[in-house]
Amino acid sequence: MKKYKKNFDYSYALGTELTLELLLQFPQEVINVYIHSKQNKKEVFNRIKSLCLKHNIEMIYSDKIFNIVSNKENCYIIGVFKKYESKINPKSNHVVLVNPSNMGNLGTIIRTSIGFGINDIAIISPAVDIFDPKTIRASMGALFRLNFQYFDSFEEYLKTVEKRDIFPFMLDGSKQLDKIEVTNKYSLVFGNEATGLSSNYRNYGQSILIKHLDTIDSLNLCNAVSIALYQFTKGRL
Amino acid sequence: MKKYKKNFDYSYALGTELTLELLLQFPQEVINVYIHSKQNKKEVFNRIKSLCLKHNIEMIYSDKIFNIVSNKENCYIIGVFKKYESKINPKSNHVVLVNPSNMGNLGTIIRTSIGFGINDIAIISPAVDIFDPKTIRASMGALFRLNFQYFDSFEEYLKTVEKRDIFPFMLDGSKQLDKIEVTNKYSLVFGNEATGLSSNYRNYGQSILIKHLDTIDSLNLCNAVSIALYQFTKGRL
Repeated sequence: MKKYKKNFDYSYALGTELTLELLLQFPQEVINVYIHSKQNKKEVFNRIKSLCLKHNIEMIYSDKIFNIVSNKENCYIIGVFKKYESKINPKSNHVVLVNPSNMGNLGTIIRTSIGFGINDIAIISPAVDIFDPKTIRASMGALFRLNFQYFDSFEEYLKTVEKRDIFPFMLDGSKQLDKIEVTNKYSLVFGNEATGLSSNYRNYGQSILIKHLDTIDSLNLCNAVSIALYQFTKGRL
Repeated sequence: MKKYKKNFDYSYALGTELTLELLLQFPQEVINVYIHSKQNKKEVFNRIKSLCLKHNIEMIYSDKIFNIVSNKENCYIIGVFKKYESKINPKSNHVVLVNPSNMGNLGTIIRTSIGFGINDIAIISPAVDIFDPKTIRASMGALFRLNFQYFDSFEEYLKTVEKRDIFPFMLDGSKQLDKIEVTNKYSLVFGNEATGLSSNYRNYGQSILIKHLDTIDSLNLCNAVSIALYQFTKGRL
């Protein structure tokens, strides 16, 4: 077992709750489960154990891998799993992230998105690795409930999905978020943390502004996405 | 110069923009400014230089400190400053964070709070260090525009501030966020990342729920605060 790298065809769920979520959603992809000698969460551990038995997954009692693979304290169970294919549902509402570069942000966005019932995230490359253990951890395991798909360009994404309203979120968006009426299927589109969306994105649909004072340059990406998801889904959950 | 520790009476603004913001808001607290040989942002650098001249602040050209103090690439200017006293305005609207434990979260909350015009954050101890360079960095320098104050208990906080509506945000809050009408001064109260607010907080005021599906346990703290701030301030900025 080695420290995770992007080109691996497997990755790690680092922690008890993440491993449980992995076993619940994708048991068929789990290679094995490592247990640290300090593991002491009885109830979750019993659920993990019975899922491993049920799906014939090897449990390995060894502390060594934890120092290599994880740099978090309190990580006492690791689920090793094969990376799997995922596709977005072309008919659903989507979040579209253009060139996201921060794994923590991506994970947190996944968690909030799943919480607000948006289960499909399209990612326009280049972008961070959704299977990096840091992303999985920041998602609190919500990754395993997500449909996701990488695209080489926004045009390629548009070709794949059903007709819908496209809402690019921009610092100079022409309509304020709270003035938007949600009538059709939609895609909420957000740019890179540092650079945002390039100005041509306003041609794809109604650009949206989340108004804030000019005491800050912009909102943090995951906060902007959360606010948008809240506003689009409230009263509909 | 040493790697930052909580008990220091000084801290570091790591980066060009942070140092500029520090010099604009608290020039009297700046001890000196370090410049790395790879520094190449001409325009911001000139603003920093003229502020240092104006306030008689020493600029030191040396690369050594950067390896000790910062573990970020692209950090080519460091502002060293004396930690300063800050007090919340007892008449303003507040965010209250009870036992926040994550520096990145705290910094991001500060950024969003300042962006939505809430300039006062009360922190109930035990809590992370607001002057940790990680917090400052996550705030993108918004810390230097913030009034903040630590309190030993929520009761102590209440004694200090003017009468207002208290809104504790809880997973079992009794009213949904979008049903709240904002009529008086208010304090938005949030618990620790892992444990939330204890149930006695519902006695302090109208508890609020940000509704999400039970596919996730909770929203990330900084996302929950952002959504609350958006909802309370929209149409008022």
